Amino acid sequence: MRRGKMFIICGPSGVGKGTVAGALMARDPDLYFSVSATTRTPRPGESDGVHYHFLTMEQFETWIAEDQFLEHAAYVGNRYGTPKKFVDEAMEQGRDVLLDIEIQGAAQIHEKRPDAVRIYIAPPSWEELERRLLGRGTESIEKVRSRLARGKEEFNAAKDFDYFVINDTVDHAVEEIQAIMTAEHCRPAERIGMIDR
Amino acid sequence: MRRGKMFIICGPSGVGKGTVAGALMARDPDLYFSVSATTRTPRPGESDGVHYHFLTMEQFETWIAEDQFLEHAAYVGNRYGTPKKFVDEAMEQGRDVLLDIEIQGAAQIHEKRPDAVRIYIAPPSWEELERRLLGRGTESIEKVRSRLARGKEEFNAAKDFDYFVINDTVDHAVEEIQAIMTAEHCRPAERIGMIDR
Repeated sequence: MRRGKMFIICGPSGVGKGTVAGALMARDPDLYFSVSATTRTPRPGESDGVHYHFLTMEQFETWIAEDQFLEHAAYVGNRYGTPKKFVDEAMEQGRDVLLDIEIQGAAQIHEKRPDAVRIYIAPPSWEELERRLLGRGTESIEKVRSRLARGKEEFNAAKDFDYFVINDTVDHAVEEIQAIMTAEHCRPAERIGMIDR
Repeated sequence: MRRGKMFIICGPSGVGKGTVAGALMARDPDLYFSVSATTRTPRPGESDGVHYHFLTMEQFETWIAEDQFLEHAAYVGNRYGTPKKFVDEAMEQGRDVLLDIEIQGAAQIHEKRPDAVRIYIAPPSWEELERRLLGRGTESIEKVRSRLARGKEEFNAAKDFDYFVINDTVDHAVEEIQAIMTAEHCRPAERIGMIDR
């Protein structure tokens, strides 16, 4: 049986990674979406193991000490990380794994797992991204501008990604990502053993 | 407008490269199939510029001197080569180019054009390849065995290809190659300039 592969999606806030990930999962129920661990308090409606693996700060520190994270980082006083165990279990079952993580996390995983495929999701333009962020209607213009500025800064890392997908429409982005997944399973290292010499 | 890319298919005699190439062209009329140049005499029904570009030995030598070939080689007293001009014209028009060439030719092109994508087409098994070759009914068992032996020898180069597609069914192989083509157009180098900084 083929082994699963790890696909990392990164991109600026507001680009639609969540929607794209949801559409990918809907089209391929076998795809495993990596659930992050966090020390932050669950919000109403959030379930442990579904939205996040909720850990105490002590548990989180233990997991770090036990090398149980593929990557981890701190944001606004809380810790976030990608647990190794669930990702590796899914891959051993032959399932591809999708990770929606920050650009620094993608760099950490690339160090440990150079065969993880990194896909940068870009907006059609920065103006369009600003419209999408403002369209949410949940954030002040200042907050939107700060997200945009951070997105543009992180865009410098996009050239080092394996693939670059423009989220002009969700269907188009999903089709390209599915093609990338198919193509990455056609590498000689994965296939050559299937043919006897 | 996007620039076309070069996709090289290689694989053992009898694996079905011609059928796969035909099916790819049928699905994407924009794909340009590279027509080889040769010094051999046209067979009945073969047209210049369609099946081959038919050249005299003198013309062929001139083309070599003028660096007009992406790769060239000699077989059984005749010369064969891939003319650079038509391939480059198609790519400049934004068309992807498909080349069905020998493994040595693929190595020559890889030297000159490292961004050409090399796809090895493998049979599901060597037994199946033998059945396909014998099924043609046009060659002696000795000839078939010699083709098989050469195919197995050249199989050592398959691990260095970018992709490895098993031709179990033509539809499956074609779908994988189309996914590879889509994925290869999602490289940051091609895309990043589309987003203003």
